[in-house]
Amino acid sequence: MTNTESAATPADRPIVVVLTSDDLGPPPDLAALSELATIRIATADELPTALPGARAVFVWDFFNPALADAWPAADALEWVHVAAAGVDAVMFDELRDSAVQVTNARGVFDTPIAEFVLTSVLAHLKDLPQLARAQQEQRWEHRETRTAAGRRALVVGTGGIGRATARLLRAVGMEVRGVGRVGRESDPDFGVVLPSDELAEHVGWADHLVLVAPLTAQTRGLVDARVLAAMRPEAQLINVGRGELVDEPALVAALQRGELAAAALDVFVTEPLPADSPLWTLPGVQISAHLSGDAVGWRQALAEQFEANLRRWLAGEPFESVVDKRRGYASSGR
Amino acid sequence: MTNTESAATPADRPIVVVLTSDDLGPPPDLAALSELATIRIATADELPTALPGARAVFVWDFFNPALADAWPAADALEWVHVAAAGVDAVMFDELRDSAVQVTNARGVFDTPIAEFVLTSVLAHLKDLPQLARAQQEQRWEHRETRTAAGRRALVVGTGGIGRATARLLRAVGMEVRGVGRVGRESDPDFGVVLPSDELAEHVGWADHLVLVAPLTAQTRGLVDARVLAAMRPEAQLINVGRGELVDEPALVAALQRGELAAAALDVFVTEPLPADSPLWTLPGVQISAHLSGDAVGWRQALAEQFEANLRRWLAGEPFESVVDKRRGYASSGR
Repeated sequence: MTNTESAATPADRPIVVVLTSDDLGPPPDLAALSELATIRIATADELPTALPGARAVFVWDFFNPALADAWPAADALEWVHVAAAGVDAVMFDELRDSAVQVTNARGVFDTPIAEFVLTSVLAHLKDLPQLARAQQEQRWEHRETRTAAGRRALVVGTGGIGRATARLLRAVGMEVRGVGRVGRESDPDFGVVLPSDELAEHVGWADHLVLVAPLTAQTRGLVDARVLAAMRPEAQLINVGRGELVDEPALVAALQRGELAAAALDVFVTEPLPADSPLWTLPGVQISAHLSGDAVGWRQALAEQFEANLRRWLAGEPFESVVDKRRGYASSGR
Repeated sequence: MTNTESAATPADRPIVVVLTSDDLGPPPDLAALSELATIRIATADELPTALPGARAVFVWDFFNPALADAWPAADALEWVHVAAAGVDAVMFDELRDSAVQVTNARGVFDTPIAEFVLTSVLAHLKDLPQLARAQQEQRWEHRETRTAAGRRALVVGTGGIGRATARLLRAVGMEVRGVGRVGRESDPDFGVVLPSDELAEHVGWADHLVLVAPLTAQTRGLVDARVLAAMRPEAQLINVGRGELVDEPALVAALQRGELAAAALDVFVTEPLPADSPLWTLPGVQISAHLSGDAVGWRQALAEQFEANLRRWLAGEPFESVVDKRRGYASSGR
């Protein structure tokens, strides 16, 4: 544990614990944070020692679930900020039932993830993997491509990332519908939003099924064998949300049976994806290492976002990107 | 030669020669054309025999230059339609100097080529080739991606395809400028259009240099060693126009020296790209087989476009997509 406390610390200067790992290290611009608060850098092991007296925790190592176990030591906690869009790894019942406010990294990942989804759509339609194979074998192979304009995408998740994705897919001429907790008409970004519990009835409409939803009790296992069986045989699944949104063994079976044509998967039930997963080598599957939102400069942006919220807190202003702890995600304000 | 002439052919029923090859065969919906005109299907060898009396030639085998050699037999020719956007392979001095009108496949390729350019931009920024390598080696490799929004593209060619490309790149948040025969301000699709003879002075502005220009005396070799040397080291060249727009040996040398980072090449000086071309294996180079515009249904669309122009001609209406034979391309109407 590294402690920037000093004898001169005024009483109103809050103690903030930054949860990190040895590999990850502290966030950039630590000096700026230390101007504002007493910063205690702690790994998971050090967390129980660091928490007493701390009024805030910055979960910089954003999938680190250590706060749950260290919870009894959190005797002064008011605020937890998670440097991720999805807070599922960090949430637990005591935190949910407490008065502690939770904020997340809303906004930072919107454009990069939307672009990654569009990239995955286009790479599939233009069959870049086959072009690459032909090039590798130095074969001049003419192929027809498919056009994105006019194709249909169902975007599951109507938060900031889902909205940015819907807008980008629409910008290139695709037809988009949303899938959310509750259905509604006339959404500004989606037009129609369908209720997620009717996904199996509606998924046959889509050429591309895009998962950007948070992982909650309602979304866990949402794309199950029934949904997969209802997909169009030429359709593509794109998952940039959480691995657990999909029944992974059912997906493998559906791909093997040709119930859908392709999948671009950036997230998995177990990460790193185990070496023995059949997904690595299934035809039509694009694998990436949970990186869709991580554009150059993302760590800096995450640190700056926390610092901005810290300044708001110290000034007595309301936080930005507050997580609805019961629902498990930050409202997009719509 | 296949001839649909019959004894009942009325005098005002024009003879139309369809230039094809044994591999390619006749266009679809030949029956519909035969309702309108006397159709003579001819390969290059058969062309001199087919041309006498023909008032139109439909260059269905769109890179076939046979009309130049068979020109003396064209005793009644009024109209040549080329089933391609670029007419460079088909143009020759006698045709240029004659009263024969030339039309082309304007419009058919706009959206597919614009999408292929966007795909190439995104595949480069998200480093899909590296993701594919990691997947192939079953390596879980986190990488940062680059964001397209805010990046700069210089689009060389201000015809219909260039405009569709500019609009699509702008739709995803990129900054775009055009390069044309003459420079101008306040173009509706490009904003600024820079004159192509100043390309070397302006190319350093661009993250992506996109070539969609027709091949003319002015554009041949436009991207030469001087232009390549002025590119940003992290920039990407995308050529979906004609191979001869680029000094290919200079491009190989520039890529080897790191004067630019990447190239997506769909067209080449010699097609198919020869087996001994270093482009096949240069790092950062994406090769495709002159297919960027060939979306599913393109052959049908090309045949329908000719039929529509044939109906206009028979009705005494002006042609659509008339090629300016002196300039070598169809005006985009701006």
